[in-house]
Amino acid sequence: MNIHERYMRLAIKLARKAEGRTSPNPVVGAVIAKDNKITGKGYHKRAGLPHAEINALRAAGSRAKGATLYVTLEPCDHFGRTPPCTAAIIKSGIKRVFVAMRDPNPVNSGRGIGKLRRHGIETRVGLLAGEAADMNRPYIKFITKRIPFVTVKVAQSLDGKIATRTGDSKWISSDDSRRYVHELRSRADAVMVGANTVTRDDPMLLSGLRGKQPVRVIVGGRSALPSNAKIFSDTHKAPVILVRPSGRFEKKVNLKRLLAALAKRGITNILVEGGGELIAGLVKEKLVDRFLVFIAPKIVGGRLAKTAVEGSGIEKIKDALGLKNMSVRRFKEDILIEAQV
Amino acid sequence: MNIHERYMRLAIKLARKAEGRTSPNPVVGAVIAKDNKITGKGYHKRAGLPHAEINALRAAGSRAKGATLYVTLEPCDHFGRTPPCTAAIIKSGIKRVFVAMRDPNPVNSGRGIGKLRRHGIETRVGLLAGEAADMNRPYIKFITKRIPFVTVKVAQSLDGKIATRTGDSKWISSDDSRRYVHELRSRADAVMVGANTVTRDDPMLLSGLRGKQPVRVIVGGRSALPSNAKIFSDTHKAPVILVRPSGRFEKKVNLKRLLAALAKRGITNILVEGGGELIAGLVKEKLVDRFLVFIAPKIVGGRLAKTAVEGSGIEKIKDALGLKNMSVRRFKEDILIEAQV
Repeated sequence: MNIHERYMRLAIKLARKAEGRTSPNPVVGAVIAKDNKITGKGYHKRAGLPHAEINALRAAGSRAKGATLYVTLEPCDHFGRTPPCTAAIIKSGIKRVFVAMRDPNPVNSGRGIGKLRRHGIETRVGLLAGEAADMNRPYIKFITKRIPFVTVKVAQSLDGKIATRTGDSKWISSDDSRRYVHELRSRADAVMVGANTVTRDDPMLLSGLRGKQPVRVIVGGRSALPSNAKIFSDTHKAPVILVRPSGRFEKKVNLKRLLAALAKRGITNILVEGGGELIAGLVKEKLVDRFLVFIAPKIVGGRLAKTAVEGSGIEKIKDALGLKNMSVRRFKEDILIEAQV
Repeated sequence: MNIHERYMRLAIKLARKAEGRTSPNPVVGAVIAKDNKITGKGYHKRAGLPHAEINALRAAGSRAKGATLYVTLEPCDHFGRTPPCTAAIIKSGIKRVFVAMRDPNPVNSGRGIGKLRRHGIETRVGLLAGEAADMNRPYIKFITKRIPFVTVKVAQSLDGKIATRTGDSKWISSDDSRRYVHELRSRADAVMVGANTVTRDDPMLLSGLRGKQPVRVIVGGRSALPSNAKIFSDTHKAPVILVRPSGRFEKKVNLKRLLAALAKRGITNILVEGGGELIAGLVKEKLVDRFLVFIAPKIVGGRLAKTAVEGSGIEKIKDALGLKNMSVRRFKEDILIEAQV
């Protein structure tokens, strides 16, 4: 690993510290180095707060002059909630910039790099681009497609059941797995469930951890929800959005339109926690980006037990939705499989 | 790791070379060493052929005198298809014996060790006992319970489906996974499926590899099987046993009685390959010892799609069948989860 890679890797590590807390912005990290010595580093902590480059430049102060900047995303060249980073970089006397990846945001893409180059700053693009893109997949999806990045999370038995035939699901996964779900919730802008899941499981859908709480979205049919459902009891912590079919004759919520509407509210990534019918709807509309499947060492059985993805399903295996990059993690006795669509 | 452990580990490694090929006998390995030098080693290759100790003693010849024998299972002290090993050990002049575990076979258990000790041979028991037991779990189950060790093998999508709602299951798992299934078949004494699976999937249930072919057992209800089913076309390679409910009024096969009857035919381990109803029956009767679940990176969906364990299932998650020692292996894009009951 050469020195540039090492600094960029550090910038990526810094960026990841704020994962799940910057939306609708991306996570970004920056390192400033001169003569094999780091003189400044920083990352973007939250939307509205300074960008990574600014934090690193402030830390470096006058030592930025003649130094090299490593930044995980193309610096912005436009006024958002903060002034453009390109101006600050040019002013600082930075001599060279390594950019891991272009900003996929059409308003900025290529403009930041162009501006730096026009000001005589040597600017190289593409160092560790893959890793930089990986940590910002929700942002990339959101900014290019204008719909949120959708993660489906389920906890199932080894034989693929998320609940028994009577609907009981407490608890399939271990304490450790459930603690991690709280972390996932605090990183998500919104948590989404079907109305049946609210009626059956009566979940809170908040994160037990400190920090950001997700908006809670209930996708319902026409039937009523229990008014004493727990999800309605803590609305001061996080709002609940209840979605019903719009037209008089529609039976189902239009999921594509729903996601676009949520994106307009600044929701960049959603954690879908069931049930099987809602997930099947999202799968059918090709709206799912990632699956997180906790597998518990249990056998539940039952041809009428509930599974993660219901709906009517496909007829032929060859038409199944293909996943890639399956990876495995352990949560004590449980296994977590992550897969990308 | 001390020297004794090292030799015993080698003996275990030797034993494993014959895994799946010795039934109804256990796998056994033996190492003879003197003055930190190995003078003989051997393993039991197949029922009817010499035991591990005999092979090691033959290799050592006169160098067995005064040496130490490491053997993964208590030497036999009875005439089976071969004469007792204890006699050969005593005659050889072996001075000391390390035995990993007692023979669970009630005919022999403790007798072999007692005989060696009575002849002045220092005999220690228990070195790497856990690992020695692990590789002989089918034998231990068979010899103590008089029913075969039952492995359930399924291939499912990440959302827990073994077939679509129309019954299509070709192919859920990858080529690599299916090749490994052939290895599993060649190690099993019998492969078992439900009659519906024969009708629906028309499988051969043979191993494509050279070596032992498993007996094929079809567990049926009262309905007829297609007479042109592939499984009936290769009976010269391996027999097919078709099992139907016995009494006039019985609707289902008594699985416990079936397993006991198969054990009487020398079948020590069975690979069950579906379908969901047969597996549910075995789970309900607590007859399953191990699950091997291939998980493919696919989403099938469908509330009427088939799952690995059907039947009526349990009502409460707390009554689920608990598994332990879940371990994970990769087969290219698939994941194999192994779990013990």
